[in-house]
Amino acid sequence: MTLLHNDPRSFADEALSGFAAAHHDLVRAIDGGVVRASATPPGQVAVVLGGGTGHYPAFAGWVGPGFAHGAACGNIFASPSASQICSVARASQAGGGVIFAFGNYAGDVLHFGQAAEQLRAEGIDVRVLRVTDDIASGPADDPALRRGIAGDLPVMKILGAAAEAGLGIDEAERIGRKANDATRSLGMAFSGCTLPGADHPLFTVAPGRMGVGLGIHGEPGIDERDLPSADTVADLLVDGVLAESKRASAAVGNADRVAVLLNGLGATKYEELYVVFRRVAERLAREGFHVIAPEVGEQVTSLGMAGLSLTVTFLDDELRQLWTAPALTPAFRRGLVQPRPPRTDDISGTHQLPPVVRGGDASRAAAACIAAALRIVRDTVTTHETRLGDIDAVAGDGDHGIGMRRGSEAAADAAAEAVALGAGARSTLSRAGAAWSERAGGTSGALWGAALTAFGSALDDTEPADRGRLVAGVRAAVDAVLRLGGARLGDKTLVDAAVPFVDRLEAALPGTDFGSAWVEAAEAATEAAEATATIAARRGRARTHGERSLGTPDAGAVSFALIVTALGDFIRPHSS
Amino acid sequence: MTLLHNDPRSFADEALSGFAAAHHDLVRAIDGGVVRASATPPGQVAVVLGGGTGHYPAFAGWVGPGFAHGAACGNIFASPSASQICSVARASQAGGGVIFAFGNYAGDVLHFGQAAEQLRAEGIDVRVLRVTDDIASGPADDPALRRGIAGDLPVMKILGAAAEAGLGIDEAERIGRKANDATRSLGMAFSGCTLPGADHPLFTVAPGRMGVGLGIHGEPGIDERDLPSADTVADLLVDGVLAESKRASAAVGNADRVAVLLNGLGATKYEELYVVFRRVAERLAREGFHVIAPEVGEQVTSLGMAGLSLTVTFLDDELRQLWTAPALTPAFRRGLVQPRPPRTDDISGTHQLPPVVRGGDASRAAAACIAAALRIVRDTVTTHETRLGDIDAVAGDGDHGIGMRRGSEAAADAAAEAVALGAGARSTLSRAGAAWSERAGGTSGALWGAALTAFGSALDDTEPADRGRLVAGVRAAVDAVLRLGGARLGDKTLVDAAVPFVDRLEAALPGTDFGSAWVEAAEAATEAAEATATIAARRGRARTHGERSLGTPDAGAVSFALIVTALGDFIRPHSS
Repeated sequence: MTLLHNDPRSFADEALSGFAAAHHDLVRAIDGGVVRASATPPGQVAVVLGGGTGHYPAFAGWVGPGFAHGAACGNIFASPSASQICSVARASQAGGGVIFAFGNYAGDVLHFGQAAEQLRAEGIDVRVLRVTDDIASGPADDPALRRGIAGDLPVMKILGAAAEAGLGIDEAERIGRKANDATRSLGMAFSGCTLPGADHPLFTVAPGRMGVGLGIHGEPGIDERDLPSADTVADLLVDGVLAESKRASAAVGNADRVAVLLNGLGATKYEELYVVFRRVAERLAREGFHVIAPEVGEQVTSLGMAGLSLTVTFLDDELRQLWTAPALTPAFRRGLVQPRPPRTDDISGTHQLPPVVRGGDASRAAAACIAAALRIVRDTVTTHETRLGDIDAVAGDGDHGIGMRRGSEAAADAAAEAVALGAGARSTLSRAGAAWSERAGGTSGALWGAALTAFGSALDDTEPADRGRLVAGVRAAVDAVLRLGGARLGDKTLVDAAVPFVDRLEAALPGTDFGSAWVEAAEAATEAAEATATIAARRGRARTHGERSLGTPDAGAVSFALIVTALGDFIRPHSS
Repeated sequence: MTLLHNDPRSFADEALSGFAAAHHDLVRAIDGGVVRASATPPGQVAVVLGGGTGHYPAFAGWVGPGFAHGAACGNIFASPSASQICSVARASQAGGGVIFAFGNYAGDVLHFGQAAEQLRAEGIDVRVLRVTDDIASGPADDPALRRGIAGDLPVMKILGAAAEAGLGIDEAERIGRKANDATRSLGMAFSGCTLPGADHPLFTVAPGRMGVGLGIHGEPGIDERDLPSADTVADLLVDGVLAESKRASAAVGNADRVAVLLNGLGATKYEELYVVFRRVAERLAREGFHVIAPEVGEQVTSLGMAGLSLTVTFLDDELRQLWTAPALTPAFRRGLVQPRPPRTDDISGTHQLPPVVRGGDASRAAAACIAAALRIVRDTVTTHETRLGDIDAVAGDGDHGIGMRRGSEAAADAAAEAVALGAGARSTLSRAGAAWSERAGGTSGALWGAALTAFGSALDDTEPADRGRLVAGVRAAVDAVLRLGGARLGDKTLVDAAVPFVDRLEAALPGTDFGSAWVEAAEAATEAAEATATIAARRGRARTHGERSLGTPDAGAVSFALIVTALGDFIRPHSS
C-alpha cells in the first residue's frame, strides 16, 4: 500500500520532481512530463511515451538515448492530458516527426489522439502506436480490443532503438507495429494496490487465491483459482503466451527467438521472480525457443500491487538487433552508450500552448471573427450551464455544464490572446482548442478541443476563410469527434446532433447562402438533440443508468445544438 | 508476503539458479554462490560479497566488472557457510588476494571469519571488511557494534572499484575501510516480510505506525511513532544521518560531497521513494552538501518488507572517483564498461574443498598420524554422543552430540582421503577442518573446523611435525576459537576447557616429553570442563537458561576434554 505522501493530490507531481532531481544527468522535467537531457539529433524521429503515474519505471524511467525521447506523465493511473502530451512532444521533436506509444486504454487513446490532431495542425508528422499485448483482455482475432501491460517494455524499447538508428518515421512506425504484433503478455495478481491517501485497496484477491489475467489497475481477469506452486504459475504463464505463438511469430517470419520479460508488479519480489523464471527458461528451451536478453524485474509496476506477468516478443533479425541495441535511461541500461552533450536550449518555459503563427491579413480578419464567435459560444454555454448540468445528472455525473463553461471560457480567452498576437485563423483555433481541452478536462473537453483544432486545420494562416474552407472545417471537426470519441450515431452522445448538423449544412449549401444553410443545419441539430431523449444510453458509465436516462436528452447533444443555434444568429447577418 | 515458491527449503537455490539463467552474460553459478562470467585479471584483488538470500540485488546482483568478483549466497536471511564462501573465493581469486565484504551480523562474522582462516591456511591473503552503516543499531563511538544495511551498496561498490583500478590489497582494504567509516544509514519500516512457506510475517508494525531504525530482518529499532507525511519522513532520515556528519566526514577530510542511496525495502515503491527523495535532495542542498550520482530504488531489500532507508557516504576525491567509476552487473550499471571475454576455465566442478598439496615424506608421515588421531576423535565423540546431547539439552537445544558426531566423521573421512591423495600435514588438516564445519553446521562446527585448519597452518606440507610446530598448532587452534567465537574465559563455553589446556601444555613441556605434557594438559582441561558446572550460562541463547544450566557443565567444554583425553592415550606411546 502507498504510505508515503504529502498531499495526495500533489503525489504525481512530487514524484516526478524527485525523479528529475535524481536523474538530472539523463532527463529534464518540463511541463507535462520529462524529456532527455540531451538534444534529439536533428531529423531523428522522436518517440514520446506516456500514461499514468504509478507504473514506474514505465514511462519516465525509459527516457534516454536508445529508448524514448520523452514521456508524458499523467496523474496516478490517469492518462496525461493532450496538452501535457503536446508539451513533451514539442520539446522532444527535432523535425523528424513524432511517434506516440502508449498502452491501449480509452483515456490514453483519447488524449494521445487529440494531441496527435493538435500537433498535426501545427505541421508535425505524428504517428500513433497502441500497445496491445495483454492476451487476457480481448480475443486473439481482434488485438485492438486488448490493453497494454508489460509488453510496453519490448515494444517501446524496440521502437526507440529504431528511432535511434536513424530510420525514417514510416520505417520506425512499421517496426513498432511489427514489434507489437509479435508481443504477447499474461499476468497474475495476488493483491491490489492502495492509492496515495486511500484507506483500502483498489481491488482485492482473496488470500490463497490468484487472479488470472488481471490488468495492471485491477481490470477484470479471465479466471480466479487457488494459488499454486511457483512452477505451476510459470507453466500457466508460458502456456498462456505460447497459445498464440503461431499468430505472434507469423508477424516476424515464424522466428523461434524471443525477447522475454518476467515483470513484477511491485510487491512480488526479485527472488520469487527468479524462482519462476528458472522454470520459464526451462520451459521455453524445451519448446524450442531461444531466449534473447531476458529481463527479470520491475518494469511496469502498479504501485504496491502483488503480481507478475510474462511477456514474449518474437524476434526476427531486425527486431533482435533493436531489442539488444544499447540504451541508457534511468531504469533500463544496456550495452555501451556514449555520453551525449546536454541540450542547450531553454526548456524551462511552457510548451503546453501551440505556437502562434502570424497570419496574413485575410486570415487575421477571419481570426478576429473566430474570436468573436468563441465569445458567443462562451456566453451561450454560461447562460445554460445549470440546465446542462441538470440534464447530465440524470445519466452522468452532472459536470457537463461546469466543464463546458470552463472550456469555452478558456477557448475564448486563448483566441483573444492569439488575435492580439497577430495569429491567423488556423493557429487561433489551434490555441483555442488546446485551451478548451486543458481547462475543461474529461471526454467532452477533449472532443471539443480536438474539434476546434481540426476546424482550424481546414483553414490556414494566410488565405481567407471562404465558404468551402468553412464547410470543410465543420466536417473535419465532426470527423475528429467521431475518430477520437469512438461513438457512433445512436449512441446518445454529441455525435447524434453533430452528424445531422454537418450533413444538412453540406446538403443545403449549393442552393442558399452560408448563413441560411447554417441556420437550417442548426435546426436539424436541435431536433436531433431532442430526439436523443427517446434513446436509452448504452455506452460507458451511463450504461447502468439506461432506464433512468430514457426520456432525457443527452447533455452533449443539447449543448452542441444550443451552440450552433447561437452561432447561426451571429453568422447569418455576416453571410453572403 | 512471499507467495511464489515450490518447496520453501529449495527457494534460495532455485532463485539463484533462475538468476544465473537470466544473467548468464554476466555471472556463473557455482557451488555456494555466483562469480563473474569473465575472468578476474591476474593479480587483481578479488572482492567477494555475501549474506543471506532475500536482499536482492544484494549481493549476487552486484557481481560484475567494476563491482564484485563473486557473491556467496546463504539460505533465506542466513549467512552462507564457510565452505560456500571459500568456494566462491577460490573461483574468484587470481593471485591478488581476496577481500570479504559483508554486513556486520554474528553469523556472517563467524562464517566469513572461518573462511578467511581456511583460505589463509591455503596461502591466500584474505582481508575482512564488515559494513557497519546503521546508526540505529549501536553507539556512534563503537561502530563495530553496528549492523550493515543499505550502506552495503556504496561501501562494496567503492571497494569493487578500487580492486578494478588495480590497487594492491592493502590499498583496496584501506579504501574499503575509509568508505565504511564515511557511511551512515537510517531506516524506517512499515510492515514486515513473510518468508516463503510461512503464514505470518517475521514481524509487524501496527497500521498507521512506523518503526524508526528497524533492521532489514526486523531487528529492533530505536523508536516507534505515528506515520507522518513523506516530507517529515525525509526530514527524520536526513536529520538522523547528518547527526553524525562531523564524525563521518572526518574520515574523508571533512568533504562536503556525498553519495546518496534512498533504498526501498521491497513494498515501498518507486513513486513514494521519489516523493521522499525530492525533499531529501532539497534538505541536503540546503545543508550545504553536494549530492554525487544518487541512487533511488531497491538495492538492499528484505523480501516484501515495507520500508525505506537513507544512506550517505561522504566522499573525498578518491572515494568520489571510485563511486562514479563504471560498473556492469545484473542490477547496478554505471558508465562505460567494455565487454570482457568470458572466462574459459572449467568451473562446473566443486570448489568447496581446499586443494590437496602433495606433501614431503616427513609431512606425509605426520598426515597419516593426524588421520589416525581424527579417527580416535570420531570414535570418542560417537561413544559419548548421547551424553553430550543430554548435557547440551539442559542449557541449549540438545544437538551438540549429533553435530560433533557428524563433524568428526566428516573430518576423519576427509583426512583419510587426503592421505590417500598424498597430502602433507597442513593440507590434510585444512581439508578435515573444512569438512567438519560443513557437515556439522552451527557454531561449534564452525569453531572446530577453524581450529583444525589453524592447527594445520602451524605445520606445513614438507617439514616434519616436530614438537615446536605441534605446540604452536594447538595454540593457533585455540586462538582461532577465541577470535572467531568471541567468547572469553568464564563464558561457559569450549574456551573454558581449551585455554587451560594449551596453557598447561606450554607450561609443562620444557620439563617433560610431549605425550606426558599432553596428558597433564588433558587433565587440566577435564577439571576445567567440570568446573563449568558452577557457572550460570550468560551468553547467547543460553542466557535465558542461566538458572537451569547451573550445576551442569558446558557440553562444548566436556567434549573438548573427552577428545584431548582420548588423544593423550594415543599420543603418549608414540611420544619421545
